[in-house]
Amino acid sequence: MILIHTPSPKEVAAYLQLFRAALPQQVFISLEEMHDPALVEYVVTWGPPVGLFASLGNLKAVFALGAGVDKLLARDDLSPALPIYRLLDGGMAPQMAEYVRFGVLSYQRHMDIYRRQQAAGVWKMLAPRLPGEVQVGVLGLGEIGRAVAQALAADGYAVSGWSRTPRQLDGINCLFGDDGLAELLAGSDVLACVLPSTPETRGLLNAERLASLPAGAMLINAGRGDLLDEEALLAQLDSGHLRCAQLDVFASEPLPADSRLWQHPAVTVTPHIAAITLRSQAVEQIVANLARLRAGEEGQGKVVRERGY
Amino acid sequence: MILIHTPSPKEVAAYLQLFRAALPQQVFISLEEMHDPALVEYVVTWGPPVGLFASLGNLKAVFALGAGVDKLLARDDLSPALPIYRLLDGGMAPQMAEYVRFGVLSYQRHMDIYRRQQAAGVWKMLAPRLPGEVQVGVLGLGEIGRAVAQALAADGYAVSGWSRTPRQLDGINCLFGDDGLAELLAGSDVLACVLPSTPETRGLLNAERLASLPAGAMLINAGRGDLLDEEALLAQLDSGHLRCAQLDVFASEPLPADSRLWQHPAVTVTPHIAAITLRSQAVEQIVANLARLRAGEEGQGKVVRERGY
Repeated sequence: MILIHTPSPKEVAAYLQLFRAALPQQVFISLEEMHDPALVEYVVTWGPPVGLFASLGNLKAVFALGAGVDKLLARDDLSPALPIYRLLDGGMAPQMAEYVRFGVLSYQRHMDIYRRQQAAGVWKMLAPRLPGEVQVGVLGLGEIGRAVAQALAADGYAVSGWSRTPRQLDGINCLFGDDGLAELLAGSDVLACVLPSTPETRGLLNAERLASLPAGAMLINAGRGDLLDEEALLAQLDSGHLRCAQLDVFASEPLPADSRLWQHPAVTVTPHIAAITLRSQAVEQIVANLARLRAGEEGQGKVVRERGY
Repeated sequence: MILIHTPSPKEVAAYLQLFRAALPQQVFISLEEMHDPALVEYVVTWGPPVGLFASLGNLKAVFALGAGVDKLLARDDLSPALPIYRLLDGGMAPQMAEYVRFGVLSYQRHMDIYRRQQAAGVWKMLAPRLPGEVQVGVLGLGEIGRAVAQALAADGYAVSGWSRTPRQLDGINCLFGDDGLAELLAGSDVLACVLPSTPETRGLLNAERLASLPAGAMLINAGRGDLLDEEALLAQLDSGHLRCAQLDVFASEPLPADSRLWQHPAVTVTPHIAAITLRSQAVEQIVANLARLRAGEEGQGKVVRERGY
């Protein structure tokens, strides 16, 4: 028996329909339909209620309906021995590439500056900048980061990428480790962060690192809000060292009403929509993983607790 | 002898340097260096002063430093017998594709709506829309229009294109004539106009045609300002029938200070920067055309006066 749960009953209904259509022999239930917790073998979930897992005595694995599992790992009702599988893509990579491309294109074509000129009634042409003249640094080269970096390289931008461990990607200047991070930051006109939240990445974008970006640079954060020191970013924007920021994730979400980010003229705020799990693709991936587990194979996207993703 | 002239002395100097480097045996001069107008065989220009051409008795051809030649054709000092060559690309097509892509991406990803939500302090996720679910209509399928349509099709959008005469393009639903225009307008979530200004296109985007776009559609005009009835557009935006507009060209440029377009929340105004002639590419194209003419061949991009481009 497989339990499907998210905070939205409408979403649960949609997922139940998709899973039942994909695996007619398998029993899928909602939390309301769960009469005997001991029968639940797997949970497919996003934002499960406090204490849910403690009641499920025969749980074999958890499938997260997302790529970031920091909140799941922080719970105290999930045994560290229980395997967690996260979505490796679920249709998110192309969306993330679009979101980052929008920011980079906006920067390259001065659209943020033209917007400010428009507000001031100023008609002034700026010198054009070709894609190859814009250096983009991508933080994170997992499934999503690779898709982002390669889409930008295909657009003609000069792309560097950074990861914890060494990577090799065609057309991308791949850097790693502390030295690699310093090199990437110093050379990025646009810094695009798609890192997960882990003990190692939390607070990564601090005042010192933001200051090490070139003057006039842009920050795009579509990874996790706790990577970024929001006050340090505001200080760099106020001083004019950084030109603008496009932020999809925040230390606290929804972004609190009193945050200065809402009204800052150099900041674009989006409500955590850079990459939304597409149901059909999530179902396809989880169904394939269930088949692997039933066959005694290893599932894809297994979370390593120590690593945080 | 070849005269180079634009309204900017700095630009003239840059062009002189590029042309002299490309063709060392050929004499290139600025207007200030012209002592004997009778020696000028060719003019390379953008925005030439009134009466300039009347004084040049031995002129063989004019090379426009742009793709749109409506202003050149409207002059009374240019003999209709004199050949005019316009830039077929000059690096403009990829820039135009970027400019239109920015607008389409903004529409697809609801970035204009998120911007308004941000101004109001609203955190609300909207249902994601995939590229294939956005129908884009491109008006104009010349060098630039084709590049725009094909770039958008490569991004995954459902692209239709319209031209005066029938065309065939891979992956683009090509329409033409009056019926084709009506069909394209009725089916375009985003209408992207890159048409030149000609007697046939002036006023094309009138109240009736704007009203025939689907509810919630977006207009991008990067062709010429006189194609669009700006008051009719404002009325459609005010009524909410159209969602937003991204405008690079205007009936009068610079856009007059009292235009309501400047401050309209649904309008993005840019100062005619969608596609700026890139000097090196313009020089390359004109040098190649000069070689063709010297060899007695036909030059590329020859303007047909009756057609207007």
